[in-house]
Amino acid sequence: MNTLYSGRFTGDVDASVKRLNDSLPFDQILWPHDIEGSIAHATMLGECGIIPREESIEIVEGLKGIEAALQAGELQLPQDAEDVHTAVELLLRERIGPVAGKLHTARSRNDQVATDTRLFLRQAIDHLVKSLSSFQEVLCGAAEREMGTIMPGYTHMQHAQPVLLAHHLLAYFWMFERDRERLLDCRKRVNVLPLGSAALAGTSFSINRDRVGELLGFDSVTQNSLDAVSDRDYIVEFLAAGSLVAMHLSRLAEELILWNSPAFGFVDLDDSVTTGSSIMPQKKNPDVAELARGKTGRVFGHLMAMLTVMKGLPLAYNKDTQEDKEPLFDTVETLELLLPAFERMLSAAKFNGAKMASALKGDFSTATDLADWLVRQGTPFRDAHEKVAGLVRSCIQRGIGLEDLSAEELGAALGGVPEVSPEASVASRTSAGGTAPEAVRIQLELAKKALARSYSK
Amino acid sequence: MNTLYSGRFTGDVDASVKRLNDSLPFDQILWPHDIEGSIAHATMLGECGIIPREESIEIVEGLKGIEAALQAGELQLPQDAEDVHTAVELLLRERIGPVAGKLHTARSRNDQVATDTRLFLRQAIDHLVKSLSSFQEVLCGAAEREMGTIMPGYTHMQHAQPVLLAHHLLAYFWMFERDRERLLDCRKRVNVLPLGSAALAGTSFSINRDRVGELLGFDSVTQNSLDAVSDRDYIVEFLAAGSLVAMHLSRLAEELILWNSPAFGFVDLDDSVTTGSSIMPQKKNPDVAELARGKTGRVFGHLMAMLTVMKGLPLAYNKDTQEDKEPLFDTVETLELLLPAFERMLSAAKFNGAKMASALKGDFSTATDLADWLVRQGTPFRDAHEKVAGLVRSCIQRGIGLEDLSAEELGAALGGVPEVSPEASVASRTSAGGTAPEAVRIQLELAKKALARSYSK
Amino acid sequence: MNTLYSGRFTGDVDASVKRLNDSLPFDQILWPHDIEGSIAHATMLGECGIIPREESIEIVEGLKGIEAALQAGELQLPQDAEDVHTAVELLLRERIGPVAGKLHTARSRNDQVATDTRLFLRQAIDHLVKSLSSFQEVLCGAAEREMGTIMPGYTHMQHAQPVLLAHHLLAYFWMFERDRERLLDCRKRVNVLPLGSAALAGTSFSINRDRVGELLGFDSVTQNSLDAVSDRDYIVEFLAAGSLVAMHLSRLAEELILWNSPAFGFVDLDDSVTTGSSIMPQKKNPDVAELARGKTGRVFGHLMAMLTVMKGLPLAYNKDTQEDKEPLFDTVETLELLLPAFERMLSAAKFNGAKMASALKGDFSTATDLADWLVRQGTPFRDAHEKVAGLVRSCIQRGIGLEDLSAEELGAALGGVPEVSPEASVASRTSAGGTAPEAVRIQLELAKKALARSYSK
Amino acid sequence: MNTLYSGRFTGDVDASVKRLNDSLPFDQILWPHDIEGSIAHATMLGECGIIPREESIEIVEGLKGIEAALQAGELQLPQDAEDVHTAVELLLRERIGPVAGKLHTARSRNDQVATDTRLFLRQAIDHLVKSLSSFQEVLCGAAEREMGTIMPGYTHMQHAQPVLLAHHLLAYFWMFERDRERLLDCRKRVNVLPLGSAALAGTSFSINRDRVGELLGFDSVTQNSLDAVSDRDYIVEFLAAGSLVAMHLSRLAEELILWNSPAFGFVDLDDSVTTGSSIMPQKKNPDVAELARGKTGRVFGHLMAMLTVMKGLPLAYNKDTQEDKEPLFDTVETLELLLPAFERMLSAAKFNGAKMASALKGDFSTATDLADWLVRQGTPFRDAHEKVAGLVRSCIQRGIGLEDLSAEELGAALGGVPEVSPEASVASRTSAGGTAPEAVRIQLELAKKALARSYSK
Repeated sequence: MNTLYSGRFTGDVDASVKRLNDSLPFDQILWPHDIEGSIAHATMLGECGIIPREESIEIVEGLKGIEAALQAGELQLPQDAEDVHTAVELLLRERIGPVAGKLHTARSRNDQVATDTRLFLRQAIDHLVKSLSSFQEVLCGAAEREMGTIMPGYTHMQHAQPVLLAHHLLAYFWMFERDRERLLDCRKRVNVLPLGSAALAGTSFSINRDRVGELLGFDSVTQNSLDAVSDRDYIVEFLAAGSLVAMHLSRLAEELILWNSPAFGFVDLDDSVTTGSSIMPQKKNPDVAELARGKTGRVFGHLMAMLTVMKGLPLAYNKDTQEDKEPLFDTVETLELLLPAFERMLSAAKFNGAKMASALKGDFSTATDLADWLVRQGTPFRDAHEKVAGLVRSCIQRGIGLEDLSAEELGAALGGVPEVSPEASVASRTSAGGTAPEAVRIQLELAKKALARSYSK
Repeated sequence: MNTLYSGRFTGDVDASVKRLNDSLPFDQILWPHDIEGSIAHATMLGECGIIPREESIEIVEGLKGIEAALQAGELQLPQDAEDVHTAVELLLRERIGPVAGKLHTARSRNDQVATDTRLFLRQAIDHLVKSLSSFQEVLCGAAEREMGTIMPGYTHMQHAQPVLLAHHLLAYFWMFERDRERLLDCRKRVNVLPLGSAALAGTSFSINRDRVGELLGFDSVTQNSLDAVSDRDYIVEFLAAGSLVAMHLSRLAEELILWNSPAFGFVDLDDSVTTGSSIMPQKKNPDVAELARGKTGRVFGHLMAMLTVMKGLPLAYNKDTQEDKEPLFDTVETLELLLPAFERMLSAAKFNGAKMASALKGDFSTATDLADWLVRQGTPFRDAHEKVAGLVRSCIQRGIGLEDLSAEELGAALGGVPEVSPEASVASRTSAGGTAPEAVRIQLELAKKALARSYSK
Repeated sequence: MNTLYSGRFTGDVDASVKRLNDSLPFDQILWPHDIEGSIAHATMLGECGIIPREESIEIVEGLKGIEAALQAGELQLPQDAEDVHTAVELLLRERIGPVAGKLHTARSRNDQVATDTRLFLRQAIDHLVKSLSSFQEVLCGAAEREMGTIMPGYTHMQHAQPVLLAHHLLAYFWMFERDRERLLDCRKRVNVLPLGSAALAGTSFSINRDRVGELLGFDSVTQNSLDAVSDRDYIVEFLAAGSLVAMHLSRLAEELILWNSPAFGFVDLDDSVTTGSSIMPQKKNPDVAELARGKTGRVFGHLMAMLTVMKGLPLAYNKDTQEDKEPLFDTVETLELLLPAFERMLSAAKFNGAKMASALKGDFSTATDLADWLVRQGTPFRDAHEKVAGLVRSCIQRGIGLEDLSAEELGAALGGVPEVSPEASVASRTSAGGTAPEAVRIQLELAKKALARSYSK
Repeated sequence: MNTLYSGRFTGDVDASVKRLNDSLPFDQILWPHDIEGSIAHATMLGECGIIPREESIEIVEGLKGIEAALQAGELQLPQDAEDVHTAVELLLRERIGPVAGKLHTARSRNDQVATDTRLFLRQAIDHLVKSLSSFQEVLCGAAEREMGTIMPGYTHMQHAQPVLLAHHLLAYFWMFERDRERLLDCRKRVNVLPLGSAALAGTSFSINRDRVGELLGFDSVTQNSLDAVSDRDYIVEFLAAGSLVAMHLSRLAEELILWNSPAFGFVDLDDSVTTGSSIMPQKKNPDVAELARGKTGRVFGHLMAMLTVMKGLPLAYNKDTQEDKEPLFDTVETLELLLPAFERMLSAAKFNGAKMASALKGDFSTATDLADWLVRQGTPFRDAHEKVAGLVRSCIQRGIGLEDLSAEELGAALGGVPEVSPEASVASRTSAGGTAPEAVRIQLELAKKALARSYSK
């Protein structure tokens, strides 16, 4: 049996137990990070004289050779190994002989797996931040193209006030901008080196943890060994940040599904991002959006899974935390699957301004403008609101829209003739963050500036 | 591209979209059920004269041939197919030619996938009920062996009153008994045939749904086609029932982890279900129990995922529900992985009655017996409680246990000399469901009777 | 301090701890069940001679007096009591003196609170089943009224095939029917008496648990005292069943919100179930539906809360389970708040058949009928599908609907002239559970029969 | 009816709907923030000349008067108002007459409620950060007192290596330190002003949002009005951060429950933080810790609730988000209830060093030290591990501990006589973050420095 601890044991592990216990089937994707961490560890062991310098070099060279061979597909991880750490060490022993046994000096799998996972997650965050940026650029581009398109703005799925489509699209820009910020805040807590905490209590070898941290690009080292080997906060925090990304995608997905439906007709999704029906030849289904909405569940579920794992867990390392990997890996993969598909979907979407314009006909979405006009004439807001509501009610009874009222009728009702049109309405909302073209243009500049800010470490 | 609906489409699906959309990587495990359902459907189509009898036979024979070849490993599902239904139909077309195209008459993938999943889940429930029964037998066996072992009974992790270890083990028997009942209640709602609902509205072909139901062993057919293709309640209900199984395992796991720790020493887990440490040679870690406790998170997470998927989903079929499969499959697999490992762990566990007996020394767990004795002498319960509490307090101050009090001291304090010992305490609790050996023996008989009751359909 | 256990303690409980610990603020709603349980317990104690018959009568009379006084508002629970059990016992002691102290003979708060909660939940389930039935009747009534209304049936939010509005509404009937079944299955596991399990081990008093069960209307008694005081499965199971109810409401809510939006205009919700805007006078917001959709979150959250509470909890009673009450009470209250509001909303809703009819114009939702017609002429389904998809594509290019094709065009394309209209389409789907009026009429009869079946115990 | 929008409506809202809809029962705790926000808004309206300066002053004075009166308990919010905003405005109208109607100029309840909630949450975060700091100080104090106490360090609940109790306690310090950091990162995204976004589209009044932000102490203003009124990310992020706090408390709780149990006896919790049993006079239950462990569920549940609410929600404001308040308020309250109780529990806890020392006897927790000693003599780690594991096995067979081996036996087995004792073991682990007293002293200094860093804005 390929384990690292058989010394004390008299019997073999039961097959059902081995299947339950082994993590290689899912943790093998950590091998690049495992080797990266081991190279830094071995380097430091040699520098500190804990193992002879030449043995350190031998180990490092061996690891680099394995890395290259794995990358080239010339070598495979031994699939009967218990976990990725064991698999790599077995390969190393095969390659350089017993000196491989010195690599594990002054460390334990407890701090090793935490290090590997943090390296993985740091990289995943950096990639996700890029994927988000890339999608945000697509949103900016779409907003730029649709600066002249007016659509009904909704509250409670009711027409509320006209807004620019560009404004609507940029609302999502800011959601993803917060996501990027959150991910980068999370990264600060990910990028701390646990290696050197050993099994739980630190080590008696005079290691240099700062050196390992420097070699691996960590900002700092953990301050408490018991905490370091049992801490999975960074995974929970990432899953929470990822849940927000998924939630934002689900919101945008919901809107695209609705807009793509015949009732709205606000968008025509490209054939390349939709699928057909095996039974209804006319269908063109917004699968990407539907799957995004559905996959929100899986991401939320992973967050809940990880919180449950950690609930009530005593110090220090417990095997329960082996369950951190699959939720983490799948969340990263899900988001990295969705973002390019969304990018594609938005890039190729054709928005239908004519349908939006026609939806604004007779929808009373300029009623607030009338009320505001009254306020500007000196009517207290509440009274203005009552007066316009009465006018709306009478229009509904007559089956007409506000735009169908004659100047006389308006004058009789309001004591004056304000201009009412979606264009005028939109143009008037010039407050910061408002939907007036000039305000949206400023917003778009701010968005581009935010994107241009370098987030890299 | 291997899809079933290309007719109307002008472009190709984007690669990122195809990867997101295709379900074959996970739904291929449904192939036996997909073929089973198709055989029944084709049989009925032939019987009803919707397709010629000989074509029906040709299709059924083709499907049986594919089934045999897949089972024998002589055939593979085409991995570029969109989903399992497409994959099977492609194999059929290859095997029997264009007549394969008639199989999809009067059905849709919407009702087909629901049928496949229900067939899968019905089988999974039946298997899980057996795995639970098998584990319950192990619990009964352990209880039988430990009828003579007394341990501290806990509330708030404090010694409360002595109990039989058999009684403690049987507590878990009843949890799993409720699980079996719940699963069988769930099965009633699983075992209803959706096929024949077609895409969403039923079909104009004069099919015989009852006949398909009969061929596939369903209890009844669904009553509303819109509901039938969008309903995933049975999956949520199963995941909730599975969450309770996992929760029960997590509770037992927690106790075994504690009992296996040096502080308790109540159980010695077999080497075959524990693992060692890569750094600490003396360790013997209860990995099975820890993983079970951890995997509770994954099962809870799947339930939450599926509830999230279904929240706010309009009628009828939406692609979001494709996300039902992985949570379902993984829950089944997780429980089927854990139960045999638990069986093994319990079967090979050595309980340490001596440690339990010594834990009962000086622990005041017979205090309630003194209070009850006073009540029997006529003291109101509340006063008896106060009196015994005072006696406990004085013992604690003197650093002795109740069993260390002399008859004189007892007499002075209580006005009489009740017998106090764990054995007497346990023996006295003869109420139904209590821990007295005679009550536990009755309980064990009831447990065995419950197990013997046939739950099979 | 108003506690029942001060005997052994030397200091006072810290104020912050008391605030954390006391459950009276939320568990006081259990008082009727607490008194009901105590009356049965005291009756049995007297009958079994554990306390003198006349003292039993005194206690029972005292409890009945308290019950009446509380109901009449003439008495209040002492708000500084630790919990509802203590509060009731303090009232009893005030009323009948020290004999009140005998009530707690042979029981503990551990089995008492489980009994109270089961009594509460049994009643809540019975009420909820009634509320569901009542709402199902409203759905039946609406379906009956809308038997002649045809609407687009949706998959992926695309028009798929025409369906009867009655059929669509009845889809929800069956969801709630499953909810009722699930609640009644849950009730079986709720309706088991834990009283007599005492603190954890049973009791040495020769109680008659079956008699208490009979007095309180329980189906049976629990079989293991350790399990009985720590089991909260019935709460988790109820919360899971309640989550499905909430999920179903969220789906119906989503549809009503959409249908009530200007884009659809399929329904006009009554003023009595909508609210206005403080700023936009024209708005009429479907608040009930939105709140229902939102409150799904709270119900799902309670389920997750309770599963988390129970994860890894050792036997037997632990204070953690005090956290079962608020999720349970709030779930019951939320559902009982939503169902009448939905009943009102549906009863007063005006469906707009004209809008539905106009939505069906040019929507290709009869394309499947053409394909099916071709199949009936002998074309394999897959080929028929391809042919109709081509026809749809050409119509889209020409900007017309299928109904705009002349007989000649149809004949040229399909080799014959099938009738295509929403009416014909709907009428043709006569398969069991299909949307044809005759099938829906059968369905409605089955629905009414299901409702008429008595579910009462 | 006390609503702000009755203008257009013809009927009354149904009672069941009103009960469902009204938020005053829970949102009234926002009144100080609602008034604070209104004062800033009115001030700005006056400064910008949108309303006359003297009316602005009148409104501000009126609001201040209401604030004082509410604080003094001389005034009550009208309990039939729909929500806190309506309630405050009704009071204002009562106090200053129709001019009150001008306060709502250029704002909507949509941006108002978001502002109120952000003000509430900013204050709650600041308070929570203080409560955490205060608890961290208690942990530091306990660590300082217990610098000389050695206990078994655990992995897998097995004795792994000896550690300082101070080290173990400080592990929790760093968890809560991360919590503080996360809360302050969250605060950045909370402290952004949404007011001025109006209903959804901004306003046509020439408001000065920066001025309002400045008056209310916000760091910046939101950039997109649609996003601003529908964004609840800051609540989800806070609930996620709060879930981690709760999770950390649950872990510490679990350990205190175990340590307080007779099996461990590592801690004696003060009477003031424990409670007794109504039936077992000897019990002393760690209720605070158990409730903390249980209440983790409620906090996790709130997070899941809020994620569910937001899933798939289209822009902009929807009533669903009214469901954000109770999860938020209850999470804040729960954590603010738990932290002082934990502070009290830890402050008054008496750790039992003698029990810990005796637990270390014969527990092989110094085995790693032997292996490390061998490594220092030149043995590769893997071989050293094997050799010591063999020695451990032989000791177990002989029923002795490592400390019972004679120098001869050690020499024969290992080729030398290393010192083995918990003291030597602990002293040797001097690596950064290790458990050696000198390392822990450095850690404690770092902890104190972290605490001293000012986090205030």
